[in-house]
Amino acid sequence: MNRSRIKSVIENMEKLNLKQIIVYSKHSIYYLTDIWAEAGERLIALYINTDGKIKIFANEIFALSSDEIEIINHKDGENPVLELSKELKSGVVGIDKNMPSKFLIDLMDLRKDISPVNGSMSVDMARMIKDSLEIEKMRKSSKINDEVMALGIEAIKSGITEKELASIINEGYIKKGASRGGTQIVAFGENCSNPHPSLRDKAISSGDSVLFDIFLPINKYWCDMTRTVFFKSITKEQEKVYEIVKNANLKAIEKVRNGIPLKEIDLTARKYIEDMGYGKYFTHRTGHNIGLECHELPDVSQTSEFIAQTGMIFSIEPGIYLPDKFGVRIEDLILVTDDGCEVLNSYTKELQIIK
Amino acid sequence: MNRSRIKSVIENMEKLNLKQIIVYSKHSIYYLTDIWAEAGERLIALYINTDGKIKIFANEIFALSSDEIEIINHKDGENPVLELSKELKSGVVGIDKNMPSKFLIDLMDLRKDISPVNGSMSVDMARMIKDSLEIEKMRKSSKINDEVMALGIEAIKSGITEKELASIINEGYIKKGASRGGTQIVAFGENCSNPHPSLRDKAISSGDSVLFDIFLPINKYWCDMTRTVFFKSITKEQEKVYEIVKNANLKAIEKVRNGIPLKEIDLTARKYIEDMGYGKYFTHRTGHNIGLECHELPDVSQTSEFIAQTGMIFSIEPGIYLPDKFGVRIEDLILVTDDGCEVLNSYTKELQIIK
Repeated sequence: MNRSRIKSVIENMEKLNLKQIIVYSKHSIYYLTDIWAEAGERLIALYINTDGKIKIFANEIFALSSDEIEIINHKDGENPVLELSKELKSGVVGIDKNMPSKFLIDLMDLRKDISPVNGSMSVDMARMIKDSLEIEKMRKSSKINDEVMALGIEAIKSGITEKELASIINEGYIKKGASRGGTQIVAFGENCSNPHPSLRDKAISSGDSVLFDIFLPINKYWCDMTRTVFFKSITKEQEKVYEIVKNANLKAIEKVRNGIPLKEIDLTARKYIEDMGYGKYFTHRTGHNIGLECHELPDVSQTSEFIAQTGMIFSIEPGIYLPDKFGVRIEDLILVTDDGCEVLNSYTKELQIIK
Repeated sequence: MNRSRIKSVIENMEKLNLKQIIVYSKHSIYYLTDIWAEAGERLIALYINTDGKIKIFANEIFALSSDEIEIINHKDGENPVLELSKELKSGVVGIDKNMPSKFLIDLMDLRKDISPVNGSMSVDMARMIKDSLEIEKMRKSSKINDEVMALGIEAIKSGITEKELASIINEGYIKKGASRGGTQIVAFGENCSNPHPSLRDKAISSGDSVLFDIFLPINKYWCDMTRTVFFKSITKEQEKVYEIVKNANLKAIEKVRNGIPLKEIDLTARKYIEDMGYGKYFTHRTGHNIGLECHELPDVSQTSEFIAQTGMIFSIEPGIYLPDKFGVRIEDLILVTDDGCEVLNSYTKELQIIK
């Protein structure tokens, strides 16, 4: 159990007027208890009450043990939320945003006297600010990501397909110590104009933009980086768009420091791209926080009400997507510091035309 | 859109007295619409009403398109369930068991007149019976799994660790065409006595049981197989336990045919292990259905009320786990046929002592 993190969560619960919460996310449970378990369709839930009561309700198959936290087991075939429902106090219960609805529906059936609200912010506000142990892990993951990006870009050659490059990336991750590969984004040409494309068997063509968005947890902490290069040749328009996206990335990064509203960072990239005439082709937020999960709260977007704080780590990933033509995105992970930031990725952003 | 699958779902909804459901699981949405999208923290939901109305509510970032289904987009920063909430009819709404609670809580806030119930069974009952296209994909995945198991077992040698063998397995999957590796179970000796162990850096020792439980989606359909072998030498007790588990696996498989209650299949393995004196060390269900997800409904367990039906595919995976000593599990995937079954795995179950 990580007492200082639990303490932060209870302080946040008090600020949010929550007396009790149910934590379900495996990442949050790991963050607070050091217990990592993949519950699958089964249940592992951490109950926290501001009076200091902390219990875990888990399927016995996970064989959880702790010297510090009481663990209440249930068996396959029993109602997994029965014991948890008895623990709840009447009234408002903060529910983990990602707890499957089946558990919430069963809890509401058993306890008509509870009012479920989304209670995740109490944990997410703590997870938002990385401590030194987490920062070290994030640096290591991103360093490996730089190396894997180099492997991917070096592997570009005539005839290669998106799927083949994605396999090379995934083998690279496993060689570098990741416990698994992932589904990476590798897109050529017009497929880059979709921010979330699927992998194709299509071979690369001369003049294609080649976009790699590669992300994976390594030792449980995620890396996430995007680079776009060009194959054999480049048009004037591609070069222009590339330089605009690169400058948007650099200008947004330059803006980052403790105390800056995240929406101002988003606006810096967005306004620059708009001023250059491509505003309508930058169709998504500038970034997202990251840590034990790839997408954590808060966003770096126009709707974000959050302020950058020392210890936050988020992506800066502006992009321009020209339908049916090509797309460019350049993404780094950024650690906020008191007077600026540290960029966790160091793979070059200079324009590359792979011959 | 797969009309025959949608038709089955609507028939199931009528049997279950559900007029409207919200499908959230990416696997179920793919099964019914051929649209595959990783929603992450965003929303993609399929609304089905028994009157034939079908709509998709999705974040515009997924750029979904369909000639057959109306798609209602929302943007980042908007309430993702607002438009969906307007579509709902008053009264009971079948909610996807895995829809994150945050969406359900927001729906209940917007619509005090709905009564959420777990609605997944209407889709799960359809997905339970694989059609010929699915069966072909499952055969292919399991054939690759046989090959990857052979790679893993051939790689056992003095000094190798659990993590290194897991990496070899994962690289093998990627070479054989999987789009990603996974976190596989590789356990030595006393670590095999935990049914869900974590990977260790510990090197193999003479006399260790070596358990591989390897599973992954290939072309979206899962394989899942377990084999246990021994390193260098074997004790009388290990040999005895191995033969009991192998016989339990074979006896349960022999029982499978259309019309047999799944609990009888479980009982066959369980009773045999009990009769041999190891009942208390077989601590989990005999199996689970599998397809687009590794664990699908129903279980092959003592609490299952389901009957084996032609087209079901499930695992048969009895095990014996002797605390602090060793463990043995042997698992195959089984396709139920009219008069028996087809075993999708062919990697040998004969006792192997790796020299």
